Amino acid sequence: MPTVIALDAMGTDRAPKPEIEGAIQAARHDDIHVLLVGREAQLQEELASHPAAADLPISIINATEVVGMRDKAAQAMRAKRDSSMRVGLRLVRERRADGFVTAGNTGAAMATAKVALGTLPGVDRPGLAAVFPTATGSAAIMIDVGANVDCKPHNLEQFAVMGEVYFRSIFSKPRPRVGLLSIGEEETKGNELTFQAFHLLKALPINFVGNVEGRDLYNGNADVIVCDGFVGNVALKVSEGVAQTVRYMLKESLKSTIASQVGSLLARNAFKAFKRRLDYSEYGGAPLLGVKGACIVCHGSSNANAIKNALRVAAECARAGITRKIEHELAQIRHHAVLTHTT
Amino acid sequence: MPTVIALDAMGTDRAPKPEIEGAIQAARHDDIHVLLVGREAQLQEELASHPAAADLPISIINATEVVGMRDKAAQAMRAKRDSSMRVGLRLVRERRADGFVTAGNTGAAMATAKVALGTLPGVDRPGLAAVFPTATGSAAIMIDVGANVDCKPHNLEQFAVMGEVYFRSIFSKPRPRVGLLSIGEEETKGNELTFQAFHLLKALPINFVGNVEGRDLYNGNADVIVCDGFVGNVALKVSEGVAQTVRYMLKESLKSTIASQVGSLLARNAFKAFKRRLDYSEYGGAPLLGVKGACIVCHGSSNANAIKNALRVAAECARAGITRKIEHELAQIRHHAVLTHTT
Repeated sequence: MPTVIALDAMGTDRAPKPEIEGAIQAARHDDIHVLLVGREAQLQEELASHPAAADLPISIINATEVVGMRDKAAQAMRAKRDSSMRVGLRLVRERRADGFVTAGNTGAAMATAKVALGTLPGVDRPGLAAVFPTATGSAAIMIDVGANVDCKPHNLEQFAVMGEVYFRSIFSKPRPRVGLLSIGEEETKGNELTFQAFHLLKALPINFVGNVEGRDLYNGNADVIVCDGFVGNVALKVSEGVAQTVRYMLKESLKSTIASQVGSLLARNAFKAFKRRLDYSEYGGAPLLGVKGACIVCHGSSNANAIKNALRVAAECARAGITRKIEHELAQIRHHAVLTHTT
Repeated sequence: MPTVIALDAMGTDRAPKPEIEGAIQAARHDDIHVLLVGREAQLQEELASHPAAADLPISIINATEVVGMRDKAAQAMRAKRDSSMRVGLRLVRERRADGFVTAGNTGAAMATAKVALGTLPGVDRPGLAAVFPTATGSAAIMIDVGANVDCKPHNLEQFAVMGEVYFRSIFSKPRPRVGLLSIGEEETKGNELTFQAFHLLKALPINFVGNVEGRDLYNGNADVIVCDGFVGNVALKVSEGVAQTVRYMLKESLKSTIASQVGSLLARNAFKAFKRRLDYSEYGGAPLLGVKGACIVCHGSSNANAIKNALRVAAECARAGITRKIEHELAQIRHHAVLTHTT
C-alpha cells in the first residue's frame, strides 16, 4: 500500500504548479499517494493539464483559504480554519494521511502543526532542522532553525535527541556525530546556555562529539549540529548571504576579461555541477521534529524537484516511524534520569 | 611627526617575518614610526636581512616572553609580564606609542588590553569589530566578534556607539547605517536581548536602520552590524566555512572535465581578482573598541600586507582620535539619558 502524504498545494511562490508537478513525480516513482490540498477547482484545472497523471494515485482535497507569506503565524492559525495548511495537517491528525508537506509560511506552518497535531510527550518545543550538503559530499543537519529563541538547556537536549533519531533513520548512519554549536572546541568555550547544554548532551546515550564551531557546519565534522533557534537562524541566513555574495563576486570577476569569458564558457558544465552540489532542493526541505506526525517544511521558492523530494522524505519519515522513535528515546532518557535521580 | 605604533612582532604563525616586512612597508609609505616589540636579538637579525630598512623609522623594543596561541587568556596576562603583547600595550599606556597592533592570541590580546590600557569611561565591555567586504564593494563591520557572550542590552548599545564612531571616522561615511542582527526585519522578530536592545538603539542619535538578518552581512544593507559576541563569532566562522566550502566545491567541479580545466586556466585572473575581493587582509584586522588606546588585532595567519594595513589603520585611529570620540559620544548619551530621566 502506498504511503499517503498530504501536500499543501498552495504554498510555493508559484503555487500550485511546482506542487502538482512534484506530486506527479512522487506518485509515479516513490510509491506515494498524494493528497493535494487547496482550492479544488484550481487544482483540478492544473492537474487536467497533465494527462499522464490521470492514472496516478493523486487526490484533491478542498480547502478554501490560503495562508499568505505575510500573514502572522498566530493570526493565520486562528483566523484561517479552512486553509490548505490547516486542512492538510488535519488529515494527518485524523490518520487519513501519514505525513504532511508545505512550502508555505514557515512560522505559520510551525504554529499550526503544533496546534493541529500536538507535540510529542517529552517535547517542550518542536524543532525545525535544516538539511544541507557538506564539503565531504554527505549531508548534515542543524536544529533548531525554526526561531525557537531564548532556549533553555533542556530544549537543546531534546533537539539533540530528535536530530539524532532523524539523521540515523533518514541518512542510515548508525552513530551520527552530534555537536553543540559554540565559539570554541573546548568545553570551557561558550555561553551560559551551551555550558549547561554541554553537560546534558554529554550524558545522553548518543555519539556526542562536543562543541563545534561555525566553520564546522559545512566541513562534515558533525552530522547533527544543535543550537538555539536564534543562532541557527542567523547561521543559516549568513550561509545564504555568503554563498550569494561569492557567486556574485565570481561572476563579476569572470565578466572582466575576454579570456575569462571564454574560460567561463568552457567551465560552464563545472559551474552547473557546482550549483547542483549546493542545491538544497535535493534534501527536500526541513523536517519539523517533535510534533505528532511527519511534517516537512519547504522553502517558498521550491521547484517541482524540491517538492518531490520533500514528499519522498515525508514518506520515509512515516515509514521509519520517526515520531514513534523520538517519543521512545525521550521516554527512555526521562526514565534514566528518574532512575539516576532516585538512586 | 610620524605616528608611533607599537607592533607585537611575535604574533603571527610565521613571526617575526610578516611583522618585519609589514613594518618596513608601513614605515616607508604611511608616515609611521614602528616600534617592533619582541626578542631583541631575533628581531635585529631579521631586520638586518633588509638593508633598505636601515634608514626607516623602525625601532626595536625588547620583550623576553611570547604569548602562545594555546595559552589561556587570563593565565597569559598574569604569568607573562614581559610578553611582547604586554610590553607593546604598556608603550601605549605610557604614551610612548599612539597605537598597538598584534596578530597574537585574540583572547589574550583582549584581556591584556583591558588590563594594561583600561576601558574608557562609559564602556562596560570593550568590543572587537570584524571588518569585511560586501557585494557592493564597500566595507561593513560587525561588533562584537570578540566572544563577549551573554551580553546585556546596554552592552549592545555601547557596541553600536563605538562601531558607529569607528566606521564614520575610518571609512569617512558621515551617517553610517547601523543595524541590529536579528532573525527578521520586523521589530517584533528576535529574542529577549534584541527586543530590549532595539529600543535602546532606536533612541540613540545614530542612523539606526532597525533589525538586519544574517544575509544582510554581505549585501551592503548595513555598515555597522551590532550583535552579542556569541552570535557574532558564529556568524564570522560560518562565513569562513561557507567561503571555504564554496571554493573547494568549485575547484572539485572544475577539475572534472578537460574543457573545465582549460576554462579554469583561462579564468585564472578572474579567480585571482575574486580572491582579492574576498581578502580580509586589505582591512588590516579587527579594531578593539572601548579600551584607552588604538588597538588592532590581526589574524594569526596574517601576511605582511595585512600587518602593513593594520599599522595604517592603527595610525588612522590614533590620528582621528577614535578613543576620544567614543568617550565623548558615550558621555553625551549618558548625559542625555540622565536629562530624560530627571525631567
